[in-house]
Amino acid sequence: MIENSKKPIPVLVSGALGRMGSEVVNTVLNSKDCELVAAIDINEKNNGSNISELLKVKNCDVFVSNDFEGTLCSVSQNYRNENIKPVLVDFTHPDSVYENTRSAIAYGVSPVVGTTGLSPSQIQDLSVFAQKASVGCAIIPNFSVGMVLLQQAASVAARFYDNIELIEMHHNQKADSPSGTCIKTAEMIEEYPKKFNQNLVKESELLKGVRGGLRDSGINIHSVRLPGLLAHQLVIMGSQGETYTIKHDTIDRKAYMPGVLQAIKKIGNYETLVYGLEKLIF
Amino acid sequence: MIENSKKPIPVLVSGALGRMGSEVVNTVLNSKDCELVAAIDINEKNNGSNISELLKVKNCDVFVSNDFEGTLCSVSQNYRNENIKPVLVDFTHPDSVYENTRSAIAYGVSPVVGTTGLSPSQIQDLSVFAQKASVGCAIIPNFSVGMVLLQQAASVAARFYDNIELIEMHHNQKADSPSGTCIKTAEMIEEYPKKFNQNLVKESELLKGVRGGLRDSGINIHSVRLPGLLAHQLVIMGSQGETYTIKHDTIDRKAYMPGVLQAIKKIGNYETLVYGLEKLIF
Amino acid sequence: MIENSKKPIPVLVSGALGRMGSEVVNTVLNSKDCELVAAIDINEKNNGSNISELLKVKNCDVFVSNDFEGTLCSVSQNYRNENIKPVLVDFTHPDSVYENTRSAIAYGVSPVVGTTGLSPSQIQDLSVFAQKASVGCAIIPNFSVGMVLLQQAASVAARFYDNIELIEMHHNQKADSPSGTCIKTAEMIEEYPKKFNQNLVKESELLKGVRGGLRDSGINIHSVRLPGLLAHQLVIMGSQGETYTIKHDTIDRKAYMPGVLQAIKKIGNYETLVYGLEKLIF
Amino acid sequence: MIENSKKPIPVLVSGALGRMGSEVVNTVLNSKDCELVAAIDINEKNNGSNISELLKVKNCDVFVSNDFEGTLCSVSQNYRNENIKPVLVDFTHPDSVYENTRSAIAYGVSPVVGTTGLSPSQIQDLSVFAQKASVGCAIIPNFSVGMVLLQQAASVAARFYDNIELIEMHHNQKADSPSGTCIKTAEMIEEYPKKFNQNLVKESELLKGVRGGLRDSGINIHSVRLPGLLAHQLVIMGSQGETYTIKHDTIDRKAYMPGVLQAIKKIGNYETLVYGLEKLIF
Repeated sequence: MIENSKKPIPVLVSGALGRMGSEVVNTVLNSKDCELVAAIDINEKNNGSNISELLKVKNCDVFVSNDFEGTLCSVSQNYRNENIKPVLVDFTHPDSVYENTRSAIAYGVSPVVGTTGLSPSQIQDLSVFAQKASVGCAIIPNFSVGMVLLQQAASVAARFYDNIELIEMHHNQKADSPSGTCIKTAEMIEEYPKKFNQNLVKESELLKGVRGGLRDSGINIHSVRLPGLLAHQLVIMGSQGETYTIKHDTIDRKAYMPGVLQAIKKIGNYETLVYGLEKLIF
Repeated sequence: MIENSKKPIPVLVSGALGRMGSEVVNTVLNSKDCELVAAIDINEKNNGSNISELLKVKNCDVFVSNDFEGTLCSVSQNYRNENIKPVLVDFTHPDSVYENTRSAIAYGVSPVVGTTGLSPSQIQDLSVFAQKASVGCAIIPNFSVGMVLLQQAASVAARFYDNIELIEMHHNQKADSPSGTCIKTAEMIEEYPKKFNQNLVKESELLKGVRGGLRDSGINIHSVRLPGLLAHQLVIMGSQGETYTIKHDTIDRKAYMPGVLQAIKKIGNYETLVYGLEKLIF
Repeated sequence: MIENSKKPIPVLVSGALGRMGSEVVNTVLNSKDCELVAAIDINEKNNGSNISELLKVKNCDVFVSNDFEGTLCSVSQNYRNENIKPVLVDFTHPDSVYENTRSAIAYGVSPVVGTTGLSPSQIQDLSVFAQKASVGCAIIPNFSVGMVLLQQAASVAARFYDNIELIEMHHNQKADSPSGTCIKTAEMIEEYPKKFNQNLVKESELLKGVRGGLRDSGINIHSVRLPGLLAHQLVIMGSQGETYTIKHDTIDRKAYMPGVLQAIKKIGNYETLVYGLEKLIF
Repeated sequence: MIENSKKPIPVLVSGALGRMGSEVVNTVLNSKDCELVAAIDINEKNNGSNISELLKVKNCDVFVSNDFEGTLCSVSQNYRNENIKPVLVDFTHPDSVYENTRSAIAYGVSPVVGTTGLSPSQIQDLSVFAQKASVGCAIIPNFSVGMVLLQQAASVAARFYDNIELIEMHHNQKADSPSGTCIKTAEMIEEYPKKFNQNLVKESELLKGVRGGLRDSGINIHSVRLPGLLAHQLVIMGSQGETYTIKHDTIDRKAYMPGVLQAIKKIGNYETLVYGLEKLIF
């Protein structure tokens, strides 16, 4: 009986018509643990339209609004007397994410932020504000559960391997290299302090200039860019006679939805800011 | 100063002229934390020969003996008054391993057993005996550190993935399938109780009979056998839009030596039987 | 000047609003070697609508029609006096593909058929008919250029390797196994007549029933089904001390468009039926 | 009956006690198409010793000699009246290989040369000399059949792909990068003249200096060095929605023996110099 009486988590999606936001809307509508209560999008054109019809997803009674504050205010009032906090999933724009997140906390709504672009000082600021308001707030640079598992497994294995190379492979429309996610993997590996890949021989390079970099720790990151790839990362560790490889392949942005769902379900247990999906899933 | 005063661990190798044993001799001779004190081999022909000359390895003063009990007895006497327990590494034969291990414990020498073939009741028996004698005893079915890491990472990830398939690939002189190590991986994954790989569609198989098996848990194990392979294992986990793959490749039996060394160094901290390398390396 | 005077190939797409057909429309509109002249779709609802607006692709003046014969007739009349044959790309339904293809040939339009379901006797029939009419007709079970390259490379290598195993991996909504494309690969390998994977040892299987099959030639096909995969195939060949692996990964159906384009451009050189993309691209 | 009457090819191995030479001795002794007739090694110590006993291989009556010219002369006389040319397999030293090869040709013995270090002008010289003497001579920089297949398959595929990246992975005792074999692969790909990997976006590299190089053709070569690897090469080609990967893995130098055997069997059909295994196996 207790299970049945558990109420679904009310979810607001901001950036609901964007590429990630529309996937989130679809995911929330198909989860029995969540209930979509608002769809916010800055684009005036679709104001008032039914979100299910617009996105051709499961039927619901939610209509798109471009009034962020107004929507937040009314949802927060509706749930004032319930002992369940609404959650705001934000996939909007670097320019608005800080204000959005601050407003949500002020209204007692827990933000789950996928939008990038928050500066360290803004995150610090939000952390103080969330704690004062006793509202959980999740800042999640990467919603991929598999990538969190890869990074954790790599960081465990790094204690046992002195030789590690990373290969990240992306579509050839990605401008920056190495990828931020791969740098994060390297940083997690480097938390176990040692010098990796110590030379056994004096190396000579006949040809230079391939894409990718060498970190101070000695870790190499190779960056491959090809059409036909989406987002792939390999960690290869070697010792005498054996190699241990951990690999993550993403071929569709639906891949991030289980992580979004985990964050929505778990952030209600917190009254502070939480940074990174790894904090929420273990 | 403290570091310098640390005495090396005295090591006896039984099966010293076998394929694994000779690698262990070489490894021990090259480790500053260990000292080779005896090399035992059943083969009478080489009795009394210098082990370094026989194996063409680093010079030492150890001569091969085929007298297991005598060697054990004299080494144990030599270290009676030291506060360091000698370690016996055993890579011999299923027929002799139980008696060897029991004798070593009786002499206060810690066995590190790589020989397979001990029955569950023999292991239980040795466990009781080791505890009574307050002597650490390590039974290690697989000395590969990388494989332990793979199995641990797979078992962590299994909490997050409902779909998992295993592929193990070995040289085509391996008679049994699936490999014991891969079955162990499946068992570790299955410790998180759920049904894997639930069918979404009614499957039809046009052709049957490929090598490999389906476990009660729903996990598939594919067994590939080809010359040019040695020992390889892949765990592939999938969810919407992404796959997470963990892979271990062994191309030389030197791969097991770091695990042997870890076991030698750690077993002195125990006064009971320890089963599996994973108990000693984390 | 000669290059400039080369006229684009007029292309009709049948099944223009389907998943593959709409990709073909988009591809043809973006190719300077082709010109979209008709978009046919059985669905009455969109009859008369502009195809560019419907599919949100590059602007053009083509309006969807559900009148297959009428469209074919009028296009064929328009190009009667040109020395260039129009091409019909058909991604429709097994029930209609034979009649469609026969009609196109009758009107002097070269069919490029991606729809599956033609029986061997229907193909034979179309072959006779195409030859009589001196119209090229391409029946293409798989438009992937990469897959053709894999199959050709595997069949070359099979002369040198006695041990070959295949692994095909697809999303877990695929009902049949092994995949038809992988069986085709096995058949091409088997054209070099020998017995593969001769046992060196008496094998024992502790666990049976994994998905996948064993062919008479001795070739094993392993079938992996996981969410997060789309369509992947590996050919692994081994001999003493080395393995040679050929792998093809498809993560989006756009992957088939270069093959469609090749078929459109090349079929004009033929006055007979051509079966398989490999006949057109080398 | 014809099959039975076919005489085995007489084989001399020079550098017979070296790492490659001793594998060749073993391979020749186990091939029914060849007969070992001489084992030459510069090292005086083993002069006159039975090669089978020294190498612990299949029994034969050949004794090691350090007299290169004398051995060549006597073998050549023994087979003067037979219509089968002896073959000399040379795995010696860059300093001696030119003279050895020239002498063999002079004695009417076909050299199969695996020793590296011949300059282009020396090869040109040997080519003229072999032609004049009507003696086949094989100069083989890489005896791996699988690598030849990879390079050929990559060069075929390059006609269809505009985006190609190479990854070569070796043990961390290899000093030079990129590997010569991988550069050869790039050269073969570049025989189809086009510019690869044209940028779609303005790339920015946050971190530089990873091992590996960028060729004028636009092809990237990534060089990975780890213990636990031996010699591995990947060619990855990508186009919209798909990737095609060709991979070769060597884990033991036995991998080169089938190529050596092919060269021994085929060189008798030539009366000129042949460069590269690919000339002999197709």
